[in-house]
Amino acid sequence: MTAKYGFYYEEGHDDLLFMDQTSVKLIIERLSSPPTPFVLYSLNQFRQNIDKYQNELHKLAPIRGRLSYSMKANYNPRLLTILKSAKAMLTTVSGGEMQLALSAGFEPSSIIYNGNGKTDESIQMAIDSGVLLNVDSLFDLEVILHYARQLNKIANVLIRVNPNLSDSNVHAYNVTASKTSKFGTNIDELEPIYKLIEQNDDKWIRLFGFHCHLGSTISNTQIISGCVKKLIELFNTKRFPHLRILNIGGGLNIDYKRYAKRTKNDDEEHIAIPTIGDYIQSIKDSIESFPHSIELVVEPGRSLIANSCVLITRVLGQKQTGSIRQLIVDASMTECIRPALYQAYHHIDTVNSLSTEERILFDIVGPVCESGDFLGKQRCLPKILKRGDFLAVFDVGAYCSSMSSNYNMRPRPAEYALDEQEQIQILKKRETNEDLLRTYCVA
Amino acid sequence: MTAKYGFYYEEGHDDLLFMDQTSVKLIIERLSSPPTPFVLYSLNQFRQNIDKYQNELHKLAPIRGRLSYSMKANYNPRLLTILKSAKAMLTTVSGGEMQLALSAGFEPSSIIYNGNGKTDESIQMAIDSGVLLNVDSLFDLEVILHYARQLNKIANVLIRVNPNLSDSNVHAYNVTASKTSKFGTNIDELEPIYKLIEQNDDKWIRLFGFHCHLGSTISNTQIISGCVKKLIELFNTKRFPHLRILNIGGGLNIDYKRYAKRTKNDDEEHIAIPTIGDYIQSIKDSIESFPHSIELVVEPGRSLIANSCVLITRVLGQKQTGSIRQLIVDASMTECIRPALYQAYHHIDTVNSLSTEERILFDIVGPVCESGDFLGKQRCLPKILKRGDFLAVFDVGAYCSSMSSNYNMRPRPAEYALDEQEQIQILKKRETNEDLLRTYCVA
Repeated sequence: MTAKYGFYYEEGHDDLLFMDQTSVKLIIERLSSPPTPFVLYSLNQFRQNIDKYQNELHKLAPIRGRLSYSMKANYNPRLLTILKSAKAMLTTVSGGEMQLALSAGFEPSSIIYNGNGKTDESIQMAIDSGVLLNVDSLFDLEVILHYARQLNKIANVLIRVNPNLSDSNVHAYNVTASKTSKFGTNIDELEPIYKLIEQNDDKWIRLFGFHCHLGSTISNTQIISGCVKKLIELFNTKRFPHLRILNIGGGLNIDYKRYAKRTKNDDEEHIAIPTIGDYIQSIKDSIESFPHSIELVVEPGRSLIANSCVLITRVLGQKQTGSIRQLIVDASMTECIRPALYQAYHHIDTVNSLSTEERILFDIVGPVCESGDFLGKQRCLPKILKRGDFLAVFDVGAYCSSMSSNYNMRPRPAEYALDEQEQIQILKKRETNEDLLRTYCVA
Repeated sequence: MTAKYGFYYEEGHDDLLFMDQTSVKLIIERLSSPPTPFVLYSLNQFRQNIDKYQNELHKLAPIRGRLSYSMKANYNPRLLTILKSAKAMLTTVSGGEMQLALSAGFEPSSIIYNGNGKTDESIQMAIDSGVLLNVDSLFDLEVILHYARQLNKIANVLIRVNPNLSDSNVHAYNVTASKTSKFGTNIDELEPIYKLIEQNDDKWIRLFGFHCHLGSTISNTQIISGCVKKLIELFNTKRFPHLRILNIGGGLNIDYKRYAKRTKNDDEEHIAIPTIGDYIQSIKDSIESFPHSIELVVEPGRSLIANSCVLITRVLGQKQTGSIRQLIVDASMTECIRPALYQAYHHIDTVNSLSTEERILFDIVGPVCESGDFLGKQRCLPKILKRGDFLAVFDVGAYCSSMSSNYNMRPRPAEYALDEQEQIQILKKRETNEDLLRTYCVA
């Protein structure tokens, strides 16, 4: 039997929240009065997610399936060392991310640089180091060719294609391949890009394949297989001798509501979330006609790291405002902007044993001076929660730390993990006031 | 005649964008190939806004009107030095902001600490230093009393009252005084707070007055005067001998769309925005029955600093996606999240002379890998805009820099001003990649 990883409630242990084999209560005690909020990482959960993807991708054989982590989800360098050991690729979206990927020791050919608006500096860095560039548009290709000539190097590229497909259950901000999306080139309008590559092929540029990404929090695998089928057709062109990579992006959702029944939020909106296995199977079903020499790349972010982290916060108090009972906590939109920005659900629940206590409905809000600063609405939690009690905000591994801000001059939180000896390891220090003021020059 | 301050187009000068007496074009030339985006501050505009408020507040005589800057709008320390010279107060919302206000040399009695979820450390700092605390709720008062006793000091407080008033034109995230708002105590439910203060009055606590804040981007002065009238009644109680401060918060909107006709966005949604004069006059109209010994405090943030800054960005390219013409720029939601978070309008226009050029409709989007990363939709701008051309995003002084993030590993931008000799002065350095990684501990 494999060990249980990640965050879960152990009913035989007074309903305590566990991270891997250790109760979160014990970790907090060992941190002895840690400033809150802070983030806990189950690196074992992250490793297990990577394994799961890689095992499923093996089933695509003889086609080679490759995993490329979408760094924008969470760029904590500790994660990169784990990904490097697992021989994963990295998908980067800025010069900063590309530079970090290179300095973490990833092979340039294992790094993809994607973006609708690349800067001159980052395009030069990509060409010069041999990173794979996604050509987003005609103007993007023109700039890439300009710098390839200037650097006297060949640019290795994929074309980002917009196949006009999207999941109707996804928040508009997470759809990236609708007809008016800012990303990629419409699948019916590739000819000008083809022509320009053809004119420069093997001199300044090599087209290795195609990329698409349908957006994030996708729960419908049918649109993934529809997309794969559309993109396969692009390989039928005989104009480009190096074609071998089909990068179908990422975007698989996770089951943010899997614990929702504990807080009575298991409502009718709950959408069934495909597993990593379901997701890869849906790809397998659509690649029967693939040439075997093709490499298939998937680029998950959320489904690799989101469920590997919780945000630990302290209750500051309770108050009644009209019909609403509010639970005020010390975490906020500065650490977790997803509820405010996407009306996203994060499960919020107790750390310590309160399983026999009466539960009532709360809005859970932070201390930031802004009404958008809420973490969850109408959640059933123990009535007796009081100042100093700990709560966990679940599934904050993706798009929380990487989107965090210092609004209200709030320091960004510390991040901790357990090492192999179950000792506490610090992955990121809590910011100090001095950190927040470091770049200001008072005159 | 007074000099013209702030950002404006000078028709006699080839339609160039000016900051005070200098064209932005010239400032960019003098910065010689600055990394973009960056922020330009007209400190003169900021000073003028402060003067405007203080002059209008003088008209409330014999009542003393006081200006308290809402630091969360923008906590650049250079602004604090100007506010200090102007003898303004500061309204802070966290321990970090309070500490910065104290270290900038503000008198503790000129600092207000407000918040629905105050930490133990920041409450101690406020009591110990003599900062004025807004009591948000019963539990907040209990913690304040606990630490007053522990520190053996008297806490100086206002009560934050929720008068149940809001402006229907304000985004839900900017409303802070509706019936279910997380801020303050319902005006009809103050008795438990009164009682607890009475029991400890002059021993551990002194009640100096009342505070309310109706939210942000308010364009309807009637609700302000309604609020003032409601709060005056609270002064009729004879239970508290020290009552003298009526703090009516801030929240005055600015005319974000004042240049909108240049980009054909002067549509029917345009709401008339009261001036600072209109705003203070609406207060004056409602304080006829005031006791003369009262001090009236206003707490503007946006209307003091928003119009004093522009974000300068470079065009990266144009592309057509379906029916939409996109203008991709190198600024994004990481510097200006207001369009994504509040669907807010920021005017976006040219820096250099392009007044005779044909204009077409664009969506203006950033390079961040997220469909929510847009700065403006359907704006009329010169068709010939090309990679390298400069644009200005207007009115970014408030809630842009203070809410900025490093999403996609984007460094937060440099901030510049002109000094009295019109020399370029750096207020904030652009972050480096090292800055972004400073708190991470790779293991």
